[in-house]
Amino acid sequence: MSSIGPPTGMRDWLPQDALLRQRLMETISSVYRLYGYLPIDTPAMEDLAVLLGKGGGENEKLLFKILKRGEKLAQAKDDELADYGLRYDLTVPLARFVATHQGKIPKVFRRYHIGPVWRADRPQKGRYREFYQCDIDVVGGASSAYEVEVITATERVLKELRLGKYRFRLSDKRLLPLVLQGFGIAKNQVGPILIAMDKLDKDVNQARREIDDVLSRDPEPWKKVTALLLRAYAVRQHDTGRHDRMEEFKKYWDSIDHPTIRADIEGILTNLQAIIASVQSINPDSSIVFDPLLVRGMDYYTGPVYEAVVEGLSSSILGGGRYDELIGQFAGKKIPAVGCSIGFERILSLLQEQELKKSSPQSSRVLPRVLLIRDGVDTIHLHQQAEKLREGLRSEGIGVEVYLDDDDVGKQFKYAEAAGIPWAIKRFDEATSTITVRYIPTRQDHTLSLQEFKTRLHAESPG
Amino acid sequence: MSSIGPPTGMRDWLPQDALLRQRLMETISSVYRLYGYLPIDTPAMEDLAVLLGKGGGENEKLLFKILKRGEKLAQAKDDELADYGLRYDLTVPLARFVATHQGKIPKVFRRYHIGPVWRADRPQKGRYREFYQCDIDVVGGASSAYEVEVITATERVLKELRLGKYRFRLSDKRLLPLVLQGFGIAKNQVGPILIAMDKLDKDVNQARREIDDVLSRDPEPWKKVTALLLRAYAVRQHDTGRHDRMEEFKKYWDSIDHPTIRADIEGILTNLQAIIASVQSINPDSSIVFDPLLVRGMDYYTGPVYEAVVEGLSSSILGGGRYDELIGQFAGKKIPAVGCSIGFERILSLLQEQELKKSSPQSSRVLPRVLLIRDGVDTIHLHQQAEKLREGLRSEGIGVEVYLDDDDVGKQFKYAEAAGIPWAIKRFDEATSTITVRYIPTRQDHTLSLQEFKTRLHAESPG
Repeated sequence: MSSIGPPTGMRDWLPQDALLRQRLMETISSVYRLYGYLPIDTPAMEDLAVLLGKGGGENEKLLFKILKRGEKLAQAKDDELADYGLRYDLTVPLARFVATHQGKIPKVFRRYHIGPVWRADRPQKGRYREFYQCDIDVVGGASSAYEVEVITATERVLKELRLGKYRFRLSDKRLLPLVLQGFGIAKNQVGPILIAMDKLDKDVNQARREIDDVLSRDPEPWKKVTALLLRAYAVRQHDTGRHDRMEEFKKYWDSIDHPTIRADIEGILTNLQAIIASVQSINPDSSIVFDPLLVRGMDYYTGPVYEAVVEGLSSSILGGGRYDELIGQFAGKKIPAVGCSIGFERILSLLQEQELKKSSPQSSRVLPRVLLIRDGVDTIHLHQQAEKLREGLRSEGIGVEVYLDDDDVGKQFKYAEAAGIPWAIKRFDEATSTITVRYIPTRQDHTLSLQEFKTRLHAESPG
Repeated sequence: MSSIGPPTGMRDWLPQDALLRQRLMETISSVYRLYGYLPIDTPAMEDLAVLLGKGGGENEKLLFKILKRGEKLAQAKDDELADYGLRYDLTVPLARFVATHQGKIPKVFRRYHIGPVWRADRPQKGRYREFYQCDIDVVGGASSAYEVEVITATERVLKELRLGKYRFRLSDKRLLPLVLQGFGIAKNQVGPILIAMDKLDKDVNQARREIDDVLSRDPEPWKKVTALLLRAYAVRQHDTGRHDRMEEFKKYWDSIDHPTIRADIEGILTNLQAIIASVQSINPDSSIVFDPLLVRGMDYYTGPVYEAVVEGLSSSILGGGRYDELIGQFAGKKIPAVGCSIGFERILSLLQEQELKKSSPQSSRVLPRVLLIRDGVDTIHLHQQAEKLREGLRSEGIGVEVYLDDDDVGKQFKYAEAAGIPWAIKRFDEATSTITVRYIPTRQDHTLSLQEFKTRLHAESPG
């Protein structure tokens, strides 16, 4: 087995990435925890009946199924070889969890869940068959005050992640279908047009071509849809966030004659307006804007939907909305819910790029380690010195690794380099708490007190 | 689906337990990180060939296998329906990881790995089909200085976990078989006797009965084994850790005539003696003792083995040792390794018991939350107050949940009680930073500054 590796489309996590993943989880959790959200977890697998429940047929091809065992397998028919499947998202497990623990969870249940899911997709760049999802939801919250809370908390997460300038877009799942209907577009054309509009960020011309294909024989609706598309595109392109987006798009709804559709649209817009006003008055730095062409892929949304985009990236890094019909499916009753799904893997790969760009190893806070060199000191004494250094450096979160084998010092420095450890302590004078430390990238030695070392450890230059 | 739940033998993690699990992971990680150990992770599944490699036959019945998909399934024979399996431990994945990433990992690779594993065992009390393992290993460390480091770090973990008085036992996998052989016991009887001796902590009489069964026709060896067993049992029972265990058991080895066996035993004891002396001089509080009847179940150990027992518990809560033959199996060369496997689930259930025993909810640091009551304040202002409270309480790691629905105050207090939130803030005067807060268990109100509240939050009594 010379080229032995993990299964196709799945990854090992080497320390640098494992630590970065952990730090991302901690940043996200700590913010939502401030808002009273608490973690839950569910098993990797669920009964197939749970995973293939309502609308699950679509997901069947994505499933990693678990073969039955022992007697059960021997007796199984060809199409009943499996009893469980690995979860393909965290939403179905949440619905099942809520049904299982009714009575144990409070009537308004704020939870977050970060964990791996599995999909037997064709692997491709940036798409894995085992990947992390991160969902934050309020189960049992019916009023739009919950949207306001989820958006406020999520903007705070984005701020703390420092991914760059971002924009939070808000719309309502019901809005565009109503508008398209109001424009006189046939029901069976609404779906393809939504799919086309969803491509706006990636390729505006592609979006236009698809709309042309659907509507070219229908000049009036075609004109209206194209005008709205181009206007929304221009607004996104020249996005200062300063003008009133509600006002901006008003003329498009005003062109709709149908009174019930008009009334429905106005109701939706009033709600969105109120959410935006609340979010902005809670967080004056909020980036939230109304965006009528926001299309969130998931069928299960029933009301307001939102997503965040980071400047320079062509697709959203998180998204969510209200979904009042899904969570109650196993509990057998309607349970309102609103949430957000953070693009965990996307953000992680952005953070990995940031780490790679950092010029010097010590500016990376991900792997804070020093190596204690063995230079003539006997093993027991070396262990003792290492313990003292650990005590001294613990407050900085620095790990102290000891070189325990009996190799010459040159080999030890090479080891530090290979292991990515920037600092090698050559000598530790316990009496004076003084160390002689080599900064591996420059091969320069510095003699300084442990206290001085602590202050310089995280600096760009050791000098 | 009225009784819908997770798969048999698997668990959901409600917030209280999910937080406790996370805290345990953090405590363990933070200590090993101090010693330069870094986290890794591997996929939940591995190729079946990896899992069923050398000696894997034993594990085949434990495997959850993944059904092949699409074309591959259609073409598969009855005994080749699966291509992957869920990992049943973290050791096989480590060996595979080391083979995959040769060249990328340093020659001495200190790593820890905490994650779920899956075994299709018959579920029973305290034994699950999905459970967490926590392994710490040094791959590539040949000298016994690595045993010293792993033991020192692990005793530190035990100390920080505050599980009660513990004892670290050390022996060598090769010792007992040599001793039994020296006593004149036939090779085929050694295995059954080791199995019997392993039951010493749980049931000394059962251990004796099994030894009687194996050796009753063989008076000389029977006498020697029984004497050693009873002595070791007595020493464990009256364990003060003060006497010299090496000296204590010397007479048993002295009765062995065979010169090569004697020499091998002395070599092993000298090494163990050196490990004990090192551990004690690094950590004068170390609990380490030599224990000749220590039997670690795993076949793959090749040298020193150790375990820790907590007073009052009948089996060990962690164990480990040197295993120089296993890690290189996929890399195709010999790679020395020494490590420790923490009984993560066992320790977690002890911590859960500790939590349950705590008399008052606020003495639990696991769920530090307050509820901001809605009493006439409009929604936007309520959100704003909550944000200010979050800022004020963030340093204490306290989450502030807001009651966003329009219910009467009595209902809101009931919600706090049901949700396990001990403090409900009834009024927040932003101008003076003063709050009126109800302590839910006693239903008493207290008016105090936010600053005072912070100091009292973690106290046993709010008064």
